Amino acid sequence: MAHRIPTPSVPAPDIVRCAYMEIVVTDLARSRAFYVDVLGLHVTAEDDEAIYLRSLEEFIHHNLVLRKGPVAAVAAFAYRVRSPEEVDAAEAYYRELGCRTERRREGFTKGVGDSVRVQDPLGFPYEFFYDVEHVERLTQRYDLYSAGELVRLDHFNQVTPDVPRGRAYLEDLGFRVSEDIQDSDGVTYAVWMHRKQTVHDTALTGGNGPRMHHVAFATHEKHNIIQICDKMGALRISDRIERGPGRHGVSNAFYLYILDPDDHRIEIYCQDYYTGDPDNPTITWDVHDNQRRDWWGNAVVPSWYTEASLVLDLDGKPQPVTERDERSEMAVTVGADGFSYTRNDDGSPEGFKLGTQL
Amino acid sequence: MAHRIPTPSVPAPDIVRCAYMEIVVTDLARSRAFYVDVLGLHVTAEDDEAIYLRSLEEFIHHNLVLRKGPVAAVAAFAYRVRSPEEVDAAEAYYRELGCRTERRREGFTKGVGDSVRVQDPLGFPYEFFYDVEHVERLTQRYDLYSAGELVRLDHFNQVTPDVPRGRAYLEDLGFRVSEDIQDSDGVTYAVWMHRKQTVHDTALTGGNGPRMHHVAFATHEKHNIIQICDKMGALRISDRIERGPGRHGVSNAFYLYILDPDDHRIEIYCQDYYTGDPDNPTITWDVHDNQRRDWWGNAVVPSWYTEASLVLDLDGKPQPVTERDERSEMAVTVGADGFSYTRNDDGSPEGFKLGTQL
Amino acid sequence: MAHRIPTPSVPAPDIVRCAYMEIVVTDLARSRAFYVDVLGLHVTAEDDEAIYLRSLEEFIHHNLVLRKGPVAAVAAFAYRVRSPEEVDAAEAYYRELGCRTERRREGFTKGVGDSVRVQDPLGFPYEFFYDVEHVERLTQRYDLYSAGELVRLDHFNQVTPDVPRGRAYLEDLGFRVSEDIQDSDGVTYAVWMHRKQTVHDTALTGGNGPRMHHVAFATHEKHNIIQICDKMGALRISDRIERGPGRHGVSNAFYLYILDPDDHRIEIYCQDYYTGDPDNPTITWDVHDNQRRDWWGNAVVPSWYTEASLVLDLDGKPQPVTERDERSEMAVTVGADGFSYTRNDDGSPEGFKLGTQL
Amino acid sequence: MAHRIPTPSVPAPDIVRCAYMEIVVTDLARSRAFYVDVLGLHVTAEDDEAIYLRSLEEFIHHNLVLRKGPVAAVAAFAYRVRSPEEVDAAEAYYRELGCRTERRREGFTKGVGDSVRVQDPLGFPYEFFYDVEHVERLTQRYDLYSAGELVRLDHFNQVTPDVPRGRAYLEDLGFRVSEDIQDSDGVTYAVWMHRKQTVHDTALTGGNGPRMHHVAFATHEKHNIIQICDKMGALRISDRIERGPGRHGVSNAFYLYILDPDDHRIEIYCQDYYTGDPDNPTITWDVHDNQRRDWWGNAVVPSWYTEASLVLDLDGKPQPVTERDERSEMAVTVGADGFSYTRNDDGSPEGFKLGTQL
Repeated sequence: MAHRIPTPSVPAPDIVRCAYMEIVVTDLARSRAFYVDVLGLHVTAEDDEAIYLRSLEEFIHHNLVLRKGPVAAVAAFAYRVRSPEEVDAAEAYYRELGCRTERRREGFTKGVGDSVRVQDPLGFPYEFFYDVEHVERLTQRYDLYSAGELVRLDHFNQVTPDVPRGRAYLEDLGFRVSEDIQDSDGVTYAVWMHRKQTVHDTALTGGNGPRMHHVAFATHEKHNIIQICDKMGALRISDRIERGPGRHGVSNAFYLYILDPDDHRIEIYCQDYYTGDPDNPTITWDVHDNQRRDWWGNAVVPSWYTEASLVLDLDGKPQPVTERDERSEMAVTVGADGFSYTRNDDGSPEGFKLGTQL
Repeated sequence: MAHRIPTPSVPAPDIVRCAYMEIVVTDLARSRAFYVDVLGLHVTAEDDEAIYLRSLEEFIHHNLVLRKGPVAAVAAFAYRVRSPEEVDAAEAYYRELGCRTERRREGFTKGVGDSVRVQDPLGFPYEFFYDVEHVERLTQRYDLYSAGELVRLDHFNQVTPDVPRGRAYLEDLGFRVSEDIQDSDGVTYAVWMHRKQTVHDTALTGGNGPRMHHVAFATHEKHNIIQICDKMGALRISDRIERGPGRHGVSNAFYLYILDPDDHRIEIYCQDYYTGDPDNPTITWDVHDNQRRDWWGNAVVPSWYTEASLVLDLDGKPQPVTERDERSEMAVTVGADGFSYTRNDDGSPEGFKLGTQL
Repeated sequence: MAHRIPTPSVPAPDIVRCAYMEIVVTDLARSRAFYVDVLGLHVTAEDDEAIYLRSLEEFIHHNLVLRKGPVAAVAAFAYRVRSPEEVDAAEAYYRELGCRTERRREGFTKGVGDSVRVQDPLGFPYEFFYDVEHVERLTQRYDLYSAGELVRLDHFNQVTPDVPRGRAYLEDLGFRVSEDIQDSDGVTYAVWMHRKQTVHDTALTGGNGPRMHHVAFATHEKHNIIQICDKMGALRISDRIERGPGRHGVSNAFYLYILDPDDHRIEIYCQDYYTGDPDNPTITWDVHDNQRRDWWGNAVVPSWYTEASLVLDLDGKPQPVTERDERSEMAVTVGADGFSYTRNDDGSPEGFKLGTQL
Repeated sequence: MAHRIPTPSVPAPDIVRCAYMEIVVTDLARSRAFYVDVLGLHVTAEDDEAIYLRSLEEFIHHNLVLRKGPVAAVAAFAYRVRSPEEVDAAEAYYRELGCRTERRREGFTKGVGDSVRVQDPLGFPYEFFYDVEHVERLTQRYDLYSAGELVRLDHFNQVTPDVPRGRAYLEDLGFRVSEDIQDSDGVTYAVWMHRKQTVHDTALTGGNGPRMHHVAFATHEKHNIIQICDKMGALRISDRIERGPGRHGVSNAFYLYILDPDDHRIEIYCQDYYTGDPDNPTITWDVHDNQRRDWWGNAVVPSWYTEASLVLDLDGKPQPVTERDERSEMAVTVGADGFSYTRNDDGSPEGFKLGTQL
């Protein structure tokens, strides 16, 4: 296991929230059909190279950038900071960490100004910005409101081999832990961390990384998520519904995972809970609790554990992926070798739903 | 394949709707906890031997009778007919069919009067009655309305080896087909049949029978069904959620299948469609269409295909089960030997969700 | 009060359900914007003179015809009958009643075949037809499903001066009463009558008539109705929301009343209850019960009581309107002269919400 | 108009959120029946003098204290601060303002520790605390989840004569404005102010004050609010539904106002929007915009403008009420003397719904 990432002597930047993700897609028209025609995200701007999309209640320029490129991957996980000065703070912070940084006063994407991008110690391309173009917030544009409307960007989810190492790094960066999954030997399988007052702005999922597990958008109500499934059925792309819908144990949110045309995973998510108090109780789930990932005990499909998107370095080249050394959550919980329980008083493995797992 | 059941010369009884099911449970208190405490059905009457339950909007005495007995099974599928005379018609009809019948002027269950029970040609215990005690219809008793409220009995589902034979018999009895599942060789796997103006009052599922596949109750909205899952998670009985929630292809209803303490299967169901016109279009699904059973292409667990409840003869003894000769739906669609498609224009088997099937 | 309408010696036609309404609108483009762009009804066909619209789950050609004309009015309340022969039965029935009838083998509207239109004894233009063009039923076209989707035509509502007279006539015609509003002197203010297994296919509202009070479309869930309000707010036509949303006492449905560009009133409606049993309990509401029209006791706006659409005779001329002789529901319940109670055990008039009524 | 409240030289306490309200009720059993049996709030503790209630997702001891007393009034608007030291900060802050303060190390209410209460410059009894007993967070106790479940305390609403004066004071205290209502002469009628990342922790409504306008609890979805109405109808207390349900223009939330047995006003509220960015756009509504208070243009009942609860001083005596000097929102918008529009491009007063206002 790699050594701990040192805590810089300079203050961490004051991060407000996860703000947008930039992803590389291999066929812009095909991706537009998915994100705009199927999911109904709103186009702020577009050209031959990129499409800038936002959710209904967003007032900054975009929550998602689709950029045309040869290899499907993630170009940036972008966070908004509290003031222009905090971009300087971010740059200084990562320089002290010895990370490669790149500052662009005019921004990396349309509609966003002064920004710094870094290759962070876990290998992820992080961006920090404050300056951004305000656009029409469509909150009350119910004339545009689709039956499966996405109203906010909710969070990122990152795959990394060593979760405790990543967790300590993000805690230094000011993130606070809301929930995690562990086993009785102290192995951590995943952790949820937030800046805004929800369960997470990002989460770390243990696995081969750095990779992007998913980016999540919120709906208002559960039926909005069901409509997305129904619509994908009507379009005969139900095979792009990977997992769900269901109720998460962790976060308590109602969820759905779908795959875009490049296999980037999108979560649709609603109704987690308020975490804004300084002593918000942290919840630790037992990895063997069969309701941790799905409160109803429905199966997690293996691809959900194994597949994820590559991430790019600042030159636009895919980062190499390091294998996880520790036990995988899938191995310890799924199938003949795994162990899960439904009722933790007896811990009996009969909790499995017969035949729903490999 | 058995020969066709003859059409009687006397008129079929005029059936209004499926009205109640009587099931034998092995532990009355444990079943009460499930149906009353978990599912919130309303108790019309109860004693040491039986509990009479109804759904919120019901005005007849009961929709479900739990009767204590040594072997979990179904004692009756009861239909309401249009008038007292139609009970006579039912008796004459089944006598001509050579079926054993039993007429009780005082009824077989509390709250129900003059009734006839028959062992029908498929081996199922059917009951027909008109006379019934009216009770308070709780439609507007929102003070009693739980978050997962069951508002109506919707339908029965029966397992029988020879679906076309059963279908012809039920058509003679006045049922009309709304939907079915076939393959290109003309094998029928299941059929949905109605008297009231919904997709079904009963359905035939091809398999070893006679057995009872499930009894279904309706909710008003989809979130009511999600709440039942959430509650079963809270009670740590998520392993009793067998399948779903999901959207059916057939019937278009939002659904959930759960198991009672004796493994009797209950469906929770909402929002199918109106079928009352005489030329209501019948829908035939291809057995290989991966969205026929779940519109989102989610896996049907094997137990759903293989498990079902025994049914009793008029002496209260379990009916012997006959194996289905024809192909099983599970065999032709699930796993390495099966074949399913998501998009029927190409018929490619890639539609499978990787790893979610045996 | 007019004498009772005689019961014909010939059988009444076997009516299946309310099927469509033909309305005259004064500006076809403006009405199209309302029914298609705002409400999302689906266009089956259209030309310079008329637009044929249907709801999502409909398989017959249309549920609403908008026809261009000089005076906003209703040209037909059309019912589907069970067979072609029942059109003959309808013609014979109304001839014996001495009503003017007009038979057209090719139908009165596109997509509908052999039909008879009559000027019924109450002055309404009724149509009866069986033959109809089947069109794509959009039930599972969730790619077309809007957030406020209308899924079925539910019912008509007619204004007539003498409700008991109209009720007896409709009972002869085969309609059954589900609910009514009366006072302790036996005055009937309104009655709900059905053929299909819902609370009504049509209702009679006491007032100056013959006029059309409203035509109602159903949604799947309550949030769909809320979305229609939200969208009308976004379009700054909230002044076209006349009443609601709310919960009806009568019928228990969740409702909304809106006005089209010609002031034709449209109800959006969901979740009434099953009425298909022959002994379905009839509910009589006291006119002074403040929860009869709105279960939450919210005010009925006066225009809802007083305004309605003209209806046409078979020559396309507006029928003259006859005043109601009896007490009006508005007069006996609203404002200083009226009397309503919330709790019927004390009958105290304090139940009024202060200041919400004229 | 009173002069501006001076800004203290010491830092304002760092307020996290509105946390609980303590109200005096005249009949504890009657209030318990309302808050526990009707609304389903969860009892953390109770004795002969007081009942401590919390919402489903709360982890601190209570969100509402019902205390028995002779005069219905509000004893405290309590805010949670970020650390124990911030209680000191609050005490110092109000002392510099010359306000009466009272510090209790053991707290004023059960389950809350070191606290300071103050009579603030507007006459309201504010409390600040950090130390609190953690209790079971019931988030996933779906076995306790009622159909109208209240999941969070959302905000307070205070009536004060001089809104700009109060606004400046609360901005000094660290609150940020999300929305307000003004007219073209610069008169401010109401303002919404937040600490947590929602539209408000408290709002100021112009009127005779200091009084408490309402305290608001959030539900997950809109149907939960409809259920509360339905239940109040079933209990024949629909006359305690004062206004709504509806969609707010301001805040965009779906809302309902109901009255407790002492006429304390409770709002049920859901789905406003995220306000956590430092440059969250502030929305100013024109007081004449008929959709500002209800997006659907439904009437605001006069009592909603005129009625409110008294507040207590630190001795438990009702604060005297000062009349508002400026124009009242009701006077300028409702009825014959008022002016409202639905479409602001023409500003025509025809936007009124005929007959729905005094």
